[in-house]
Parts: sequence; structure tokens; C-alpha cells
Amino acid sequence: MSTTPDTPFARIGRANDELRAVRITRNYTMHAEGSVLIEFGNTKVLCTASVEERVPPHKRGSGEGWVTAEYGMLPRATHTRSDREAARGKQTGRTQEIQRLIGRSLRAAFDLRLLGERTIQLDCDVIQADGGTRTAAITGAWVAAQDAVNRLQGKGMIAQSPIINEVAAISVGIVGAQPMLDLEYREDVACDTDMNVVMTGAGHFIEVQGTAEGAAFSRQEMDQLLNLAEKGISELIALQQKALA
Amino acid sequence: MSTTPDTPFARIGRANDELRAVRITRNYTMHAEGSVLIEFGNTKVLCTASVEERVPPHKRGSGEGWVTAEYGMLPRATHTRSDREAARGKQTGRTQEIQRLIGRSLRAAFDLRLLGERTIQLDCDVIQADGGTRTAAITGAWVAAQDAVNRLQGKGMIAQSPIINEVAAISVGIVGAQPMLDLEYREDVACDTDMNVVMTGAGHFIEVQGTAEGAAFSRQEMDQLLNLAEKGISELIALQQKALA
Amino acid sequence: MSTTPDTPFARIGRANDELRAVRITRNYTMHAEGSVLIEFGNTKVLCTASVEERVPPHKRGSGEGWVTAEYGMLPRATHTRSDREAARGKQTGRTQEIQRLIGRSLRAAFDLRLLGERTIQLDCDVIQADGGTRTAAITGAWVAAQDAVNRLQGKGMIAQSPIINEVAAISVGIVGAQPMLDLEYREDVACDTDMNVVMTGAGHFIEVQGTAEGAAFSRQEMDQLLNLAEKGISELIALQQKALA
Amino acid sequence: MSTTPDTPFARIGRANDELRAVRITRNYTMHAEGSVLIEFGNTKVLCTASVEERVPPHKRGSGEGWVTAEYGMLPRATHTRSDREAARGKQTGRTQEIQRLIGRSLRAAFDLRLLGERTIQLDCDVIQADGGTRTAAITGAWVAAQDAVNRLQGKGMIAQSPIINEVAAISVGIVGAQPMLDLEYREDVACDTDMNVVMTGAGHFIEVQGTAEGAAFSRQEMDQLLNLAEKGISELIALQQKALA
Amino acid sequence: MSTTPDTPFARIGRANDELRAVRITRNYTMHAEGSVLIEFGNTKVLCTASVEERVPPHKRGSGEGWVTAEYGMLPRATHTRSDREAARGKQTGRTQEIQRLIGRSLRAAFDLRLLGERTIQLDCDVIQADGGTRTAAITGAWVAAQDAVNRLQGKGMIAQSPIINEVAAISVGIVGAQPMLDLEYREDVACDTDMNVVMTGAGHFIEVQGTAEGAAFSRQEMDQLLNLAEKGISELIALQQKALA
Amino acid sequence: MSTTPDTPFARIGRANDELRAVRITRNYTMHAEGSVLIEFGNTKVLCTASVEERVPPHKRGSGEGWVTAEYGMLPRATHTRSDREAARGKQTGRTQEIQRLIGRSLRAAFDLRLLGERTIQLDCDVIQADGGTRTAAITGAWVAAQDAVNRLQGKGMIAQSPIINEVAAISVGIVGAQPMLDLEYREDVACDTDMNVVMTGAGHFIEVQGTAEGAAFSRQEMDQLLNLAEKGISELIALQQKALA
Repeated sequence: MSTTPDTPFARIGRANDELRAVRITRNYTMHAEGSVLIEFGNTKVLCTASVEERVPPHKRGSGEGWVTAEYGMLPRATHTRSDREAARGKQTGRTQEIQRLIGRSLRAAFDLRLLGERTIQLDCDVIQADGGTRTAAITGAWVAAQDAVNRLQGKGMIAQSPIINEVAAISVGIVGAQPMLDLEYREDVACDTDMNVVMTGAGHFIEVQGTAEGAAFSRQEMDQLLNLAEKGISELIALQQKALA
Repeated sequence: MSTTPDTPFARIGRANDELRAVRITRNYTMHAEGSVLIEFGNTKVLCTASVEERVPPHKRGSGEGWVTAEYGMLPRATHTRSDREAARGKQTGRTQEIQRLIGRSLRAAFDLRLLGERTIQLDCDVIQADGGTRTAAITGAWVAAQDAVNRLQGKGMIAQSPIINEVAAISVGIVGAQPMLDLEYREDVACDTDMNVVMTGAGHFIEVQGTAEGAAFSRQEMDQLLNLAEKGISELIALQQKALA
Repeated sequence: MSTTPDTPFARIGRANDELRAVRITRNYTMHAEGSVLIEFGNTKVLCTASVEERVPPHKRGSGEGWVTAEYGMLPRATHTRSDREAARGKQTGRTQEIQRLIGRSLRAAFDLRLLGERTIQLDCDVIQADGGTRTAAITGAWVAAQDAVNRLQGKGMIAQSPIINEVAAISVGIVGAQPMLDLEYREDVACDTDMNVVMTGAGHFIEVQGTAEGAAFSRQEMDQLLNLAEKGISELIALQQKALA
Repeated sequence: MSTTPDTPFARIGRANDELRAVRITRNYTMHAEGSVLIEFGNTKVLCTASVEERVPPHKRGSGEGWVTAEYGMLPRATHTRSDREAARGKQTGRTQEIQRLIGRSLRAAFDLRLLGERTIQLDCDVIQADGGTRTAAITGAWVAAQDAVNRLQGKGMIAQSPIINEVAAISVGIVGAQPMLDLEYREDVACDTDMNVVMTGAGHFIEVQGTAEGAAFSRQEMDQLLNLAEKGISELIALQQKALA
Repeated sequence: MSTTPDTPFARIGRANDELRAVRITRNYTMHAEGSVLIEFGNTKVLCTASVEERVPPHKRGSGEGWVTAEYGMLPRATHTRSDREAARGKQTGRTQEIQRLIGRSLRAAFDLRLLGERTIQLDCDVIQADGGTRTAAITGAWVAAQDAVNRLQGKGMIAQSPIINEVAAISVGIVGAQPMLDLEYREDVACDTDMNVVMTGAGHFIEVQGTAEGAAFSRQEMDQLLNLAEKGISELIALQQKALA
Repeated sequence: MSTTPDTPFARIGRANDELRAVRITRNYTMHAEGSVLIEFGNTKVLCTASVEERVPPHKRGSGEGWVTAEYGMLPRATHTRSDREAARGKQTGRTQEIQRLIGRSLRAAFDLRLLGERTIQLDCDVIQADGGTRTAAITGAWVAAQDAVNRLQGKGMIAQSPIINEVAAISVGIVGAQPMLDLEYREDVACDTDMNVVMTGAGHFIEVQGTAEGAAFSRQEMDQLLNLAEKGISELIALQQKALA
């Protein structure tokens, strides 16, 4: 569903280049090595980092570690209840796509050699959804991973931090012909173009995934969206640092 | 794993017949018709009630409604991470057993004829586990169901409340030869007998599920456990009423 | 489906506290280490015990053995044909619940250290169903397990019998306001309360699973049901001994 | 596993062209419209016929009925326990191949137009296996189907019997260079060629499935095997008639 | 679907005992150790042979190798699109039956001891279907297997060829009362009897699978079909040799 | 696996901004409404378009049609054999991600209202893989879809073509610090950044999916890659037109 470029669409309560209120709560649950509730407005994602002293087969004996992610959505995180994937017996293509994206993005934060032969498993579970769950998940998972790494360093299990990049993610899109930062659900369903961008603290790109939901987008629109994303991500990285301070 | 009857075991910080601190937070998430976070000490379960204007095939055309439940545990709700059931492609026998128990227990609260041909779907997702997740789930799901029914009545969709019983549940067990109420995880793994009891506000039994984990238990021990359960459940029902007030 | 407490319901051909005719046929099939056809009236369950010289991962290297069970129902064991679980591609929640119950009940009969690192796999397959299949399965599986253990001892593979408890099971229920022992199908569908009880030869409880199908049940009714179960199980244990004599 | 053509192999207790003792017990279980236990020596298969007043989608509205089959083996029907297919979550290729063969063979017995829009579902479950389970299943299923048809006729639901052919099946093979009829397990594992033949009472072929397990077989051997099969099947058809008399 | 024996049916463009045009293209794709596109008229099957330096568990440590096959059909290889098995999540019974047949047939070509502990995996994928896909697959897979073996010998990995038989396969059937060789789709759907025959270059049988689709077939018809199959297979084996020359 | 930015890497036989030889063969198979073999160098993908006169549930009664895609890879399309997804029982996350991408890209070519309530199902099966299979699939599927639409128009089933955009796709990447167009396999495994771009004939973007495999990429690199993609896609669209002429 999308508007045509000239449909009037007004964002409510914030500027087009403004993030929603972001809250990062560390140690949200007690068992995980890292446990972060991240909120982008009404979107709430619980990101836990679990350290496992083993690696998948393709890394065994390599001296390197592994970082991977799984993503889920509670059945009633959404407006209408969606089927529970465990009951259906398989994850949707959307879920798999998102968890592969989170995994790749977080691996880009790590020097796996410095991690040693262990795995950091990131679980991102959406408690409440209002658009942008995958970008909130990546941004929160990075903080959870940092907490898990700090714990490993605190126990003397690793000498040097394997985290070599700060990583955050944000969505941008064109809604009613206007480029907008950090789309919420009502904007997401109305947008013509939807783009998820993952970047490092140094301002480089890890992932760019842009999709024309309605009309195809021009090179100029692409440039506007990337500009917005750069702005949003630099703000998110500051918020991550503040939460970890 | 269990102690032998003469292993000394001391409960910490509360009497053997005392519940953990119970907290019931309504409207915990924003989309569901009922959404309750229930805490039994460190155990935290999110219970949502979703109203769907359809019934499963065996109720179609009957004029009656249906109440059913699903149960899940976030992978890192526990001390060590457990596999995500959606990724494994099936629910464990334990999960199915628990969600069938929750469903039966909540149906005992309802006169399905008064509900009309609609379904109340209860989703109980464990955010953090420390023993007693199924009893917390039942106790919280009843509150979420009440909120959903209130909303249906508020909209004039049903005339008379279909909820005919208050329902709550608690675990009891014998740990180190002592009967105890509301076992937390360290007690649960040490117990010889574990019993989950579901009762109505009128003091009648809906379910009694007792299992000898170590030595088999006597009729006298059974009586002691049922006494404890009656005490705990009457307190839980008072707490439900207070939360709804 | 249940009667209200005042619906008249008459048991046919036996007293309310009387078991159905029980028949235990050992060596029913020729390959298994233990093979027992057990009949509770028209309910017929084939229970085989297979000895496997390996244990599941969680017992490897422990010096202990394992006892586990699977349960199945032939598609036309019932009034109307039910789907074949192998064709559907998964076991129902009911099947899993029952086989977990059988496994726990039979493990309570064993000192797993005396079994050595081997597994006794119990397969309980319902040839014809008329109520009480899970209790017949437990009662028959114990005899099959005894035969398998005798064979291991006969071959000198174990010195001392690992069977430390006699185990039998029976259903009890309240039908038309009357407590009844060993429900057959027409009683089971009409009952208000259904309880399965597993006990040792010494008269202690291994499992008590009581469910209100209609009205919730009182403490007094619970006591009546447990009394009936104690009576029935002591008779079953005598029948097991007679069959093994 | 197979012998080379010159390995000496002696059949025990019967001639090479002799069937094992065949027993056909009708009404073996009480719920099914047809229920037959068929024994070929130590091989025992329970064949039930269930009548269902509906047809699969490809027959809806055609005025024709359907006949189909499912096959299963109890886990300990065999020398060593095999996995339960319901627990593994899928039927093996062997199981599917056999149940497709049974279904095709039994459909050849029927004029589906005379059956009306209903299904006869045949369930063939192996209680004890000693070679020849699929041929026993076909031979027994035909008797169960006949009983189900008789019941439909007895109730006046069909005017004219839809069974237009008698159908039976037998295995033949070459073991130690000798053609043999009705292989038992120890012969089956030693044979060079194994052939299953399904025929009508009129002496025509419905299925011929011959497989070289060891050396390929000659046209002359094929002819000897078909001769043996013709002999065995005419005897089986006489036994079916006797059982139904 | 079948004609009655007296339905007139005329084959178009070739004699009843004539093969369709057969084309065998080696090295059709570049990665596999053997890669053959085989065409029987409009039926086109890509057969690849992959050499893997491991064997399945039942062959480990035996010193013997293994030969196995998988079969698939592209969704639009057929007149109307069929579901993609990977998307449905399982292979049909037909697919499993065919791939088991191909595997057995090709194993009959090999002395597995001479292969050494490695596996030849044959993948037969139908690009376009017009009847006879399984017989084309067997015939083509044998050529692909020969190419893979030649490569192993060329690299000095095996001293003596493990291929001890030439193997080819053809379908025969009775259409409109006439025995015909190599049925194409329109003949296959009209036939009364359909038989697939797999033979060695020496004229012996590996597999004979005959099925009455309509009326059962007589011993005389069987003989006519086997004669036709012998003729067709000797021609196919000559074509295989020519392709390998 | 990736090179560091300063690893020397030389493309062989073509310039960095040059496509591989592209071949588009229409009517490659005979049953499908559109059937195209597309080759990007050694990458060969068979793209078929099937017209089905029905739509999925979310489009029923809407008056609109649907376009969807499935993707598969023959097991030995690759250097080493990969598991057959149909045998494993599920599609990988990679497969699902790719087929979702193809589906979205092709829907962007269509005005679904002009298609009417029918589905165009695109099947993209990789016969041989050497990098760029998803971009070849999109480019070829567009031609197959055009052929299917032409056939619908030829039969008078639709008045006006529902195809409103030309669509093609190409990969670009940074290998050894050099931006390159249309990566083949050896370049793909060595690249630091991999980007798949889908565009319309009018030069607008439908999808941009860029991933840092090694180092994160700068805005400037992103611009270089988009420039290359624009060049490649305009050439592909010319080749599509030529093939359709």
C-alpha cells in the first residue's frame, strides 16, 4: 500500500528529519550476559546477548569466534495478532531475512579473531511493534553485545575487545513525496520507498537496503535518503554511548 | 534432580507458606485487548488476550465461543539459552503440555455460550524465568481475559459477562522434606514432589498435577500440599481483584 | 462434554468401585525383550520393552541408564478413524503429554544407576481404545520392563535388578455425581472430573493428574477419588504379580 | 545382502513352492467397518477398513468413490527397534512406496462408480514382521474391504457390490539359486531377486515388482518366479474365500 | 485414466516398437564430475554425478563406497505447473519412489568394493517432461556415472573401474490393446498397463515394475511387454556406448 | 571471505565496467507460457512464467492480479554439491530472501489491476552458477513475463498490457579496491562490498541491496557502484528488447 507522490501526508509531532524518542535500558532481564530493551517511540525490542563457549562447525579449530542473531515477534506485538512461528513450525521468509541482516550487521562490528572460539548469540524479540523493529534490533543488539564483551573482559576471558566498530541502524523513506527519518508504522504503510541503513560510528555503510514500495525512486531521492540516514545514525551512536557511559 | 528427604534445605527470605512478591501490571503493551505483565518474584510473564471474531471449526455454527492459549519462552529467559522453538521448527512436548493446561484452565473460567461465536486467544510469553512460569501464566491470563471481556462489554458486543469463575494457579512442592508454596527455580530443581494446582475463587479444583521427581509422596504429604495451594490461591485471587479494581 | 452433577448416569455391569476385566498377556510378540498385551475391558494396548546398549546424550558417561516411552494409537483404534500421526508429520500435544507421563512413571520404578549405561525404550501402542489407554499403558509397560530386566539378568548383563518400585495406574472420575473407578469411554465423555493416578506398590503417589471437565471439584470429591484409585491400583499390582508368577 | 547364486541355502520346514501357514481372523478389533488380522507365518498385519462419507478433492462431484491405504510398522515389530515415524516427523520412502502399492492394488478390486461418493480407507499396521508384510497387507486388506462393503450393502447404502475383482499378493524370490514362494525374513535378506506380485482371482496381473538385490536375473528366472506367484496367489484367494464363507 | 482394451489409439510418427529420438549430451554443465543431458523425444533430464569423499554411516569403515540418487522435476517441466517440493517442505511419494528406483538401478551397475569409501551422488532433474522421465534418468545417470568414474581413474584415485554392468531403462505399456515401446505422455495417460524395465547390457533384469492402470494384464501381455523392453534397452545401451566413444 | 582493500586483484578478459556475455534464449522449454534461459557468462538460469487463473487469498475479489516468484538451485549447479532443498524439507534463508527479491522486483513491472484476477508465477531455477544468479533471474524473468503477457494478449484475455516498466538487475562490487560490474564467482568471494541493484528502463531504482562483506564502504564508493549499475542495467534492458524483437 502506498500513496502516490502527490498525496499529502503530514508527520505528527516531530520534524521529518527527527528520530522518535529513543530509550535504551540495559540489564532489562537478569540471566543474559547482555540484556537491552530498546525503544524507538512505541517500538520495543528486547535484545539479549548470550555467550556460548562453542562455535558452529565452519569455525571449529579456526581460533575465531562467531556472532549470530535470531529475531522474533511476540504474536500480539502487532495491531492484529499474527501466528506464532513456533506453532506454525517455521519462520517466515521475512523473519529469516531480518535475522540474517542483524547477524551480518553485528558481525561487521567484530574482529572475530579477537573474540576467540566462542559465539555471541543475539536474540531480538519484539515486544511491541510500531515500525522500525529491525533497525531498533540492530541498534539495541550492539549495546547488548558490548555488555557481553565487557563481562568477558571483566572475567579476564579476553584480553582485547573484539568490537572494532560502533554499529547502529535506521529506516528512512519517502512518504507523500517527502523524505523522512525513522518511519513509524502508519508512515511505513504509506511510503513509496523504504530504506534500511546500517552504518558504523565512522560513517561508513554496512548495509543499504532500499525498496520501492510504490513508484521507483530516483538517484536524487536516494541521495536525500542517505543524507537523512547519516544524520539519524550519528545521533543513535551518541545515544548508545550515553547508555553505556 | 532432587534431594533425599533428609537433605537440609532452607528457603531464603520468606516463610515456607508465603508467596513471592506478586505484581500485576495491566495494559503492558498497547495493541492487545488485554495485556498483563505478571511477576511472581523474578518470574515475569507477558499475558495478552486477543479477541478474534471467528471460532475454530468444531465450534462453527454452535453459537458458542472458544478460549485457547499458546505459551512460549524467550530463548534467554533462562539461566542458559534454550533453542528458539520457531527456529527448531516445533514446539517441545513441555511447551505443548503447558499451553494445553493454560487453555483448559481458562476455559473453566468461561461460559462459552455467553461469549458468542468469537475466540479469546491467550498468549503467555515468558520474559524471565525463575520457576512457576505456568502458574504465573494462568493467573495473569485470567486478568488479561477479564480486560478483554470488559472491552467487549464496553463496546456493547456482549450483554452479560461470560466469565463465571475467578481462576488462579500456584505451584507447591516438597523440598528437603518440607512442604513449600510457590517454588522458585532453585527450589524446583531440588524438590522431591512438584505440584501445580489451579482453583476457582470459590475454592474448587480445576486442575491438580502432582509429580514425584524423587521419592513417591504419601497421602499425608498430598494433603499438606493441597492445603498450601488453597492458601496461596486465595491470596492470588485477592491480588487479581485488587489489580482490576 | 459433561453431564451436570445431577444428571442420572448408571454404570452397566459392574460396581462403581470395580475395575473392568484386566488381562495381561506376556510374550505377545516375538522380537521385543518384553512384550505385553494389556486389556482393561475393551481397551487393548501392546507394550513392548526394547533394550538398547546406548543412552541419550545427557546420560553419556554418567554410568546411569535411561528409561523412556513412546505412545501411539492405531488410526482405527477409535470409534471414528483419526489421522495417522506419521502421515500428518507430527505427534499431537495429547500424544506427547501421554508419552511423557508414561516415561516419568516408569522411571520412578527404576534405580537408573543399577541399570548401567543402557536404555529401556517402552513403546505403548493402542490396538483398540475404550477409555483408560494411558493407565493401561503404564500398567502394561511395567510388566514389559520387568520381563526385559529379567532377560538382562538371565544373560548376566546386570547383577541386581534396577526395578525398585512396582508401578501401576488407573483412572477415576466423577460421573453423574458418583465417583467411579476405571472409566470406560462412555463414562469418560460424560464425566465432570477425570483423574489419572499412578502409584507404587507401597501405596505412594508418583503422579496425580486431575482435571475438571465440567464443574470444578471439591476437596471432598478429590479425597473420594484418591480412595478409589488406591483401591484399584492395589488390585492392579496384584494382577501384575500374578501375570509374572 | 545377498548370497551369490551358488551359495547353498536350505528352506526349513516347507517346500520351496509352499506358502507359510496363513491365518485370517476377521473382526479382530471392534470399531472398524472391516478389521482383519492376517498372518503369513510369523508376519502379522492388522488391516482395517474405514468407511468415510466423503471423497478427496479430485473426486468431489464425480459420483465416484475412492479407495486408499496407509501402512505402518510398530517400532518393535522388527528384530531391532526402528524409529517411530510419527516421532521422526515423516514417513520413510519405503513406507510411502508400500502404501502407494497397497492403494493401487485395492483400487484395482473396485469399480469406483458403484461405491458412490465415499472413501474406503485401509490401514495396514504391522504388529510383527518376518518378511512379506506388504503382500500380507494387500491380501488382508482385500478381506477387510469386503467386510466393509458387506456392511454398506447390509445397511442398504449401496445396491450393487463395487468389488469387481478378488485381489491377493505374494512375494517370490531366488535364494541360493532356487526360486522360492513367500519369503520369510531370513530368506529375504539372503535372496538375489525379490519380486512382489499382485493378481486378481481371474489370474491376471495388477502389479509385478521385481528387484535384483544381488545378480541381475534372467528371463527364464522371471518366468519361474511368475509361475510360483500364480500358484501362491490362487491358494491365497481360496483362503480369503474360506475366511469370508 | 485409461482406455478400455478396444479403444482405438494410434501412435503418431513412429512404430509401436520404436524408441523416440534419443540424444545424450555429455558435459552439459561445468562443475559436476559427470553431467549429461538426456532427451527421449521431448523429455529432457539433466543427470549429474558428484563424487564425494565420504560415505553414509552404514558404510563407514567398510572399505566400500556408495551410489545414491535424488530426483526432482522443475515446477514447470509439466503441462500445468506443479508445486515446488522445496517450498511444500517435502518430497512426494512419487518422487521418493523414483529416486529409490534410480539409486537401486545404478548400484546394480557397481561393484562398491572397487569404488573405495566414496559416494557417487546422482542428481536427476527433469527440465521438460513428456513421459518416461524415470527411465531417461536411469539411462542418463549411467553415462554421468561413467564419466565420473573415468575422471577418478584419470586422476589415479581408483585402479580398476567399479562399473561392472551397463544399465539402461525403458517404459513399455499396452495402449488401446497394443503393446508399445517408450510411452510419451499422451500414451502414458491412455494406457491400460505401464511397465518400467531396467536391464543390464548382458540382457538381464535389474528391475521390472508393471502396473495395471486399467484392466489387469495377462501373462501373454506381460511377455509381449518384456520382449519390447529387451529390444529398446539393447538400442539404448548402444546409444550410451556411442555417446561415450 | 574478502580481500583487504590493497590486495591486488585483476579481472580477466573484460574491463571492470563490462558485463559478461549475456545470452537470452526464449521458448527454452515447451510447456510454460514464458520460458527463458538467461546466461550471464557461465551463470545459466531457466526462468519460466506460468499463468494461473486464480489469485492468492489476499487478492480474491479485488479485481487485481498477482505476480510472485520462486527460486531454486540444482544441487550440482555449484562447485561442490549443495543439499537438495526438497530433500532437506525446507528452503534456506538465502533462497527465501532471493525469491522475495525477485517477486518484489517483478511486481514493480506490473500494474496488477490491468492483469485481472490471475497470477503470473515465475520460477527461476539455476542450472549452472558462477555468480550473479539473482540478477540474471530477475532480468530473465522479466522477459518470460513479457512472453506470458503477450500470449494472454494474443488470446484476447487482456486488452492492455499490464507491464508498465522494463526491469533488469545487475550486481556491482568493490574487489581489491576497484569498483566492478557484474561479479562472477571468483570476484564475488573476493569482494569487500557486494551490491545488487534492480532498476527500471526509465533509470529509477526498484531495489538497492548493498552489503559490506569486508570493510564498510564510503559514500563515495556507493556513488561509484550506483554509476556502474546504471550503466550495466541500461545495457541489459537493450538486450532484453533485442531478444523480444
